[in-house]
Amino acid sequence: MSLIEKFYTGDTGALARIISHIENRGPETDKILAALYPRTGGAHIIGITGPPGAGKSTVVDKLCYLYLNRGRKVGVIAVDPSSPFTGGALLGDRIRMQDLAVHRDIFIRSMATRGSTGGLALATTEVIRALDAFGKDIILVETVGVGQVELDVAEACDTTVVILMPESGDSIQAMKAGLMEIADIFAVNKADRDGAQRVASELNMILDVKREKCKRQLPVVLTQAVNNIGLDELLSKIDQEYEHMKTGDNFLKHRKKMIRYDILKTIEHRFRIRLINEILPHNILERQVERIFAGQGNPYDLAQKLIDDLKAGQIRQLPD
Amino acid sequence: MSLIEKFYTGDTGALARIISHIENRGPETDKILAALYPRTGGAHIIGITGPPGAGKSTVVDKLCYLYLNRGRKVGVIAVDPSSPFTGGALLGDRIRMQDLAVHRDIFIRSMATRGSTGGLALATTEVIRALDAFGKDIILVETVGVGQVELDVAEACDTTVVILMPESGDSIQAMKAGLMEIADIFAVNKADRDGAQRVASELNMILDVKREKCKRQLPVVLTQAVNNIGLDELLSKIDQEYEHMKTGDNFLKHRKKMIRYDILKTIEHRFRIRLINEILPHNILERQVERIFAGQGNPYDLAQKLIDDLKAGQIRQLPD
Repeated sequence: MSLIEKFYTGDTGALARIISHIENRGPETDKILAALYPRTGGAHIIGITGPPGAGKSTVVDKLCYLYLNRGRKVGVIAVDPSSPFTGGALLGDRIRMQDLAVHRDIFIRSMATRGSTGGLALATTEVIRALDAFGKDIILVETVGVGQVELDVAEACDTTVVILMPESGDSIQAMKAGLMEIADIFAVNKADRDGAQRVASELNMILDVKREKCKRQLPVVLTQAVNNIGLDELLSKIDQEYEHMKTGDNFLKHRKKMIRYDILKTIEHRFRIRLINEILPHNILERQVERIFAGQGNPYDLAQKLIDDLKAGQIRQLPD
Repeated sequence: MSLIEKFYTGDTGALARIISHIENRGPETDKILAALYPRTGGAHIIGITGPPGAGKSTVVDKLCYLYLNRGRKVGVIAVDPSSPFTGGALLGDRIRMQDLAVHRDIFIRSMATRGSTGGLALATTEVIRALDAFGKDIILVETVGVGQVELDVAEACDTTVVILMPESGDSIQAMKAGLMEIADIFAVNKADRDGAQRVASELNMILDVKREKCKRQLPVVLTQAVNNIGLDELLSKIDQEYEHMKTGDNFLKHRKKMIRYDILKTIEHRFRIRLINEILPHNILERQVERIFAGQGNPYDLAQKLIDDLKAGQIRQLPD
């Protein structure tokens, strides 16, 4: 039985191996992804993001339990930048998820940056597609930090929950970090702390201004994840947002947006691989670096020449 | 007199217009960048990063004054993600820099994401090159947030200062966000708060483990930027790191790394522009989206075909 066939029987080992293929990007990766793609589109993909320390992992854990209790099959992807100290993803936060991990309807995976810019967000999207094709109903994608990877990953999610906490200026920081643009739902976690209501009010105020653009107010939920408070409400808001998205032609638009994202990001990434491996392999790149270092030419003329040389004449004759 | 000529006379208006060219990416942009490149390499490029709320802007302000008082010409780039509420960069933090901005030896610019992934880090690097060619001695690059853009921008800096504050777990959060990997110097700001010494000790402990890799311990400085405490020490550490980097063949290696970065990032970015404008313009992209949506094909086969079709045969015949 092939890896793909095993995968379709629901073999978790096959899923894990396919994810390793995606992470390590072997020659088979694109074929595997192509084979899985027709079965994607069934999962509800939920992004969980927000500044460090807001309690994202706890919220994710608790949502897992709630979804599992409702009989849903759950996949969790935790996107952690790599650290030179651990040699990979920092798994500390995930250790307490081990009792969750024995549950047969859950699959948990940490992903780490491997130095390649743009690679992490795309690999995360590909793992989302694999979990989706595997038959997960719910895919929770937790991103650490408040940067570009988070914004990219959010593009690949159906619903994005931004977790804040009642620290001074947290709503302002969220605005600065671009989180406002990607949020579908806000949770003010650690809501037993001073200022939670104030942060929620600030958010509602800001969202009130924003409403004029998107026609309706985004929900703001107060949670205390460690004390299991507010999570049922959060989950019901997540479900409501998803139901709303599926009304009218919103869902068609959203699915097509996802396909567009997959096409463009995949092409850019495969070009980058080709650039490094074939177009400018190490020795040719180094010769150019030496030339420019010696004052001959510059990166901009070189890039122009290289891009001009790419003959893309046949590309427009794509199958109709 | 051409824009470039004006630029070389030290005309700040010409500098501002060249930066606008970079941000708006007109047809002239690459020519301008190519013309400036030979004059780059003289500035000390200092990245200032760290989690939201650590006081990065205040540290940057104070360092500006210190460098200006030493007769150095200073450029400041503040990288802010755009917000739908302000329609651009959030300039709140910068307003109090206005008294700085009238100083003739300083140039301050905020940069905002314009929706294009990867574009912000590259545009920031290009603005760094412009300020460098303009004759700035010191270029301070402040990044908001703790994500991929920060890591990318750090690659384009000579010295990276990571600003933390004495909040519980801040050093752990820094590790998670990948900040440890890019730091040359740590500043624990707001050091009058409880726990500052503890965070510094934690950092030293972690760095002690790391030292085995990089041979020497990275400096950790306690600062209270609003009270002007610790900034002279921070500045002297920054200068020491730069001097150290310039010893032996470190500097050659570093300069070549920068050139390599400029080459690869520029090619990738120009490919992305060509992809969107020529290879897969809107109507062709949409046709492919519709096909895949209808179950015909998938993004991976499409990307493969497109990349295979790029004839790159002439690329190896680059000038020697």
